[in-house]
Amino acid sequence: MWHQREIRLRPHPRGFHLITREVAEAVPELREIRIGLAHLHILHTSASLTLNENASPDVRDDFAAWFDRAVPEDAAYWTHTVEGPDDMPAHVKASLLGPSLTLPVRDGGLALGTWQGIYLCEHRDRGGARSLIATLTGE
Amino acid sequence: MWHQREIRLRPHPRGFHLITREVAEAVPELREIRIGLAHLHILHTSASLTLNENASPDVRDDFAAWFDRAVPEDAAYWTHTVEGPDDMPAHVKASLLGPSLTLPVRDGGLALGTWQGIYLCEHRDRGGARSLIATLTGE
Amino acid sequence: MWHQREIRLRPHPRGFHLITREVAEAVPELREIRIGLAHLHILHTSASLTLNENASPDVRDDFAAWFDRAVPEDAAYWTHTVEGPDDMPAHVKASLLGPSLTLPVRDGGLALGTWQGIYLCEHRDRGGARSLIATLTGE
Repeated sequence: MWHQREIRLRPHPRGFHLITREVAEAVPELREIRIGLAHLHILHTSASLTLNENASPDVRDDFAAWFDRAVPEDAAYWTHTVEGPDDMPAHVKASLLGPSLTLPVRDGGLALGTWQGIYLCEHRDRGGARSLIATLTGE
Repeated sequence: MWHQREIRLRPHPRGFHLITREVAEAVPELREIRIGLAHLHILHTSASLTLNENASPDVRDDFAAWFDRAVPEDAAYWTHTVEGPDDMPAHVKASLLGPSLTLPVRDGGLALGTWQGIYLCEHRDRGGARSLIATLTGE
Repeated sequence: MWHQREIRLRPHPRGFHLITREVAEAVPELREIRIGLAHLHILHTSASLTLNENASPDVRDDFAAWFDRAVPEDAAYWTHTVEGPDDMPAHVKASLLGPSLTLPVRDGGLALGTWQGIYLCEHRDRGGARSLIATLTGE
């Protein structure tokens, strides 16, 4: 069994945002799968997806704090500066976190840990609406 | 063909640990698959999975050295400190390495490179027993 | 439907290299898949795969600049130095970026964003020819 859908997320400000519910509701076919996999893929190179703590908003703020220091905007070694100071750091952050998540599906839902939520990682100041492709397979 | 199993790992101290054999033995259904994929997913947000060098224990020590410096415990910018100084760095490290591995399966086993082994990356001082979901699919 | 192929890439110098076309051409079975997934796995622990901007070569140069500073060769904490100063940093970079990509397939091709290209991330000075396993599944 295969299902594929494009999911268009509303624009989010720069930072880390919990989108678990929004994504799960966009793929109702999840309910038909007893055992399977859900693959989420973001179609951009300056935003990414990760899985992390779904309870405390300060965890998501601390993600932003760490990534902004680890990949600074004002570094002298950036040569690709034509798209603005937030662009090249966004590309590096996007690859550190990755463009895709593959998640186990069990009994009609995502089989995540109690504290695991899906983060949209928006690395641009004005990234606009981001699109995902969700691919479901299973039995 | 689909198989799914939950694997409970014994507790490991903070650091990087080779678990290739333990994982492969926990999913004997691998042997039935000629071509396929094995997906391993850790159900936690302060531990992660990666694939790296399976021979020298000093490689795994150096992983710990690099990650502890890159994501320091005593940084002034952490605000999520309520769960202890090792918690927030553990969340960031977990997302840098990722919660899942998808591995090729060929002729009844994991098709890894000669030097590739599965690491459990335990980022907490006392993370306890960690659980994985293994999902196998193939023909 | 399952297909699996080993792809041997020509040697690349240290750095980040666009290999989208080379990979897609190596798996002509992509054209038979209406909805599916393509899994690419590198069989090495000092090179990796990522997805990022496919237009500007300076983005790839800046990736090298950032990774070389973030994971320095001359750090005092490396103990695994027997394989040369570029070896241990290569292992860490390989895990930060990851050994695999799982990509959506739609209507006979990779369903990537307009600006997304597949990078071979060669972290060794002389890494030689690298091998991938490509696994395709879908309907």
